Amino acid sequence: MSTITRPGGRTERTRTAVLGAAFTITAEVGYGGLSIEAIAERSGIHKTTIYRRWGSVDAILFDAIVSRAESAVLLPSTGDARADLNAMARSVAENLEDPMSRAVAAAALSGTGDGSLKELSDRFWDDRIGKAAEIVKAGQKEGQIDAKLDPSVVVVEIIGPIWFRVMVLQVLVDRSFIEALVDGAIR
Amino acid sequence: MSTITRPGGRTERTRTAVLGAAFTITAEVGYGGLSIEAIAERSGIHKTTIYRRWGSVDAILFDAIVSRAESAVLLPSTGDARADLNAMARSVAENLEDPMSRAVAAAALSGTGDGSLKELSDRFWDDRIGKAAEIVKAGQKEGQIDAKLDPSVVVVEIIGPIWFRVMVLQVLVDRSFIEALVDGAIR
Repeated sequence: MSTITRPGGRTERTRTAVLGAAFTITAEVGYGGLSIEAIAERSGIHKTTIYRRWGSVDAILFDAIVSRAESAVLLPSTGDARADLNAMARSVAENLEDPMSRAVAAAALSGTGDGSLKELSDRFWDDRIGKAAEIVKAGQKEGQIDAKLDPSVVVVEIIGPIWFRVMVLQVLVDRSFIEALVDGAIR
Repeated sequence: MSTITRPGGRTERTRTAVLGAAFTITAEVGYGGLSIEAIAERSGIHKTTIYRRWGSVDAILFDAIVSRAESAVLLPSTGDARADLNAMARSVAENLEDPMSRAVAAAALSGTGDGSLKELSDRFWDDRIGKAAEIVKAGQKEGQIDAKLDPSVVVVEIIGPIWFRVMVLQVLVDRSFIEALVDGAIR
């Protein structure tokens, strides 16, 4: 996304309308109902504008996940790494448990075949896991977490079971499960 | 599956042909290309036979996962719980990393919307997690694993990050990652 966006500007309004439409359609009728035409009709944004900016339905879906994660997932830094990881993990669970996010995430999993989307996905996860790993690194600096642990492995040990439980087992994640995960990951 | 199956019998040959066709089609063209018609054509099994036995494309897809997991995922019981969990985890990773299994698992994630499939999925995971939890329980009995840990949480702490890494991050899982997971989960 090299486009320059001003908050509240036209570019940002277009993004909000298009991603909102993608979320709604995916939640209502699933990935199969998602097309540039359907998104254009629902969002009121012209087809050619959507094509020019995103190029494909998968790219729109992916951008929808990015925008949701950016606003919904917490990355606090209070000086208490254990509490910060618990808050991050709870926000990941809440985001995934939202039926719309869940539908979009499931659709993305089955759609991430082509190379350009794989590149977007890699960039997104490098960024998200990198930011969450900062919480672990801060805890290691403060002596709260074993310095020998790999920060990004710790993050995957927390996020992975949440994804698995919500997306695969399709059961809710409670606070005690998250606490057990965090305690297990930071030992 | 209440059908009585004799190994090598006609019922089992039908299942092998239909599930094989479902795997091949999903891997080649994705979930979108999966239809009872396409499976009938590829497998040489009559459409009505397939309808009678499975009822839907999603049920076939799900049965394909069950049959693959049953043959590919190891549940050893050597008396060394840590080694057994490592072997189980490696076989889960290898199964998911197989492009065909991966494609089918991704398709199932986006297809598990309706109630009957959710029921099949619950039954499958209760069984698989229950069997893997037996390894943990054996280790607890032998004093190798803390008796206070919930065996099925331990299993999800091992399987969840593997799923997340293979399915979401789309990176291979190496031996040291799996060892870190198992050590973290059984502390």
